[in-house]
Amino acid sequence: MSKPATPAPSALVERCVASEPLFEGAFLRAFRDQVALPDGSLAAREYVRHPGAVVVIAQADDGRYVVERQYRYPVHRVMLEFPAGKLDAGEDPFVCGQRELQEETGFRAREWAYAGAMHLAIAYSDEVIHIFFARGLVAGAQALDAGEFLEVELMTLADLLQAAQTGALTDAKSLSCLLWLQNVHAGTWALDWKTAGEGDSGA
Amino acid sequence: MSKPATPAPSALVERCVASEPLFEGAFLRAFRDQVALPDGSLAAREYVRHPGAVVVIAQADDGRYVVERQYRYPVHRVMLEFPAGKLDAGEDPFVCGQRELQEETGFRAREWAYAGAMHLAIAYSDEVIHIFFARGLVAGAQALDAGEFLEVELMTLADLLQAAQTGALTDAKSLSCLLWLQNVHAGTWALDWKTAGEGDSGA
Repeated sequence: MSKPATPAPSALVERCVASEPLFEGAFLRAFRDQVALPDGSLAAREYVRHPGAVVVIAQADDGRYVVERQYRYPVHRVMLEFPAGKLDAGEDPFVCGQRELQEETGFRAREWAYAGAMHLAIAYSDEVIHIFFARGLVAGAQALDAGEFLEVELMTLADLLQAAQTGALTDAKSLSCLLWLQNVHAGTWALDWKTAGEGDSGA
Repeated sequence: MSKPATPAPSALVERCVASEPLFEGAFLRAFRDQVALPDGSLAAREYVRHPGAVVVIAQADDGRYVVERQYRYPVHRVMLEFPAGKLDAGEDPFVCGQRELQEETGFRAREWAYAGAMHLAIAYSDEVIHIFFARGLVAGAQALDAGEFLEVELMTLADLLQAAQTGALTDAKSLSCLLWLQNVHAGTWALDWKTAGEGDSGA
């Protein structure tokens, strides 16, 4: 191991002095905090509070993976992504993963594995995305939210990697998922698979 | 190639009907647009406008990579990241990459390669991050902004991958960079290296 020791956090930590709402939209909630920097000086930090989200890497029995194409207004383009969605208030991430996969793609999965979390936009958002793997898929009907339009397709890992290399897949949460998928597929990163309970799988 | 044809964008595209500023902070600028959905119904979209950014995967002559530990206030933790920074107004991404690497880590690089772009938080931000590789490093002095505190270290690819697997590295832009790095290192994704010009390298 060549990794140096992690520095004492106290040399880097910023401490909240005051917090005020910057605005509350229908979707976005932002805050401006006054913080004390490590040297004691003060600075402002503006950021968005997000409820957290899940993303699901779901493999069909033919080996391909479930992806979506969805128009993402902020970037004004149709994006290729793994299925993902926001946590409802108080919702368990695993329940959310099952719900979002089924609502957006119609698929339910018999087996699930939790991979880890990512922090999406650490300069200005507290969003955490929990990464799940799913397999043993059973097709069903989508249940899209009103105003939600997306196309579901299946892609091989090779095609997903090619899409990342050529710029057809540029969504950071999905690129992060591809790192997980490539290493799990290679057998270098192990997952702890669990069978979805009867009560869970239809949630 | 098993990839199905990309659906006609018109089936998914949302069209701007009206746009209003939601707020303008010192750092964050947000907007609320009214959009026409593919079925003609109307919806609101709230999002942050970001100037864009760069991230640099810089390899030292001993094979290790330059990373930073920086306290990220929105997530209240010290994050392990590749060096990154926002574009100044009108700044070329390559110039920004050279500038940020030098300012944050002190390193200048003799060779650079552009890998691609990622979209960081497509549900609520237009942020694009341009990914650069750099090598042929020459150490120098950092030039941190006022109020910027970070620690620079060098890590092997194996240690970076282990950090991603164990949850010590959860920053989505850096996980996306690791996907690039792993495939470039394996020789499956090629880069087009260029020597930094005399006029560029000290920019």
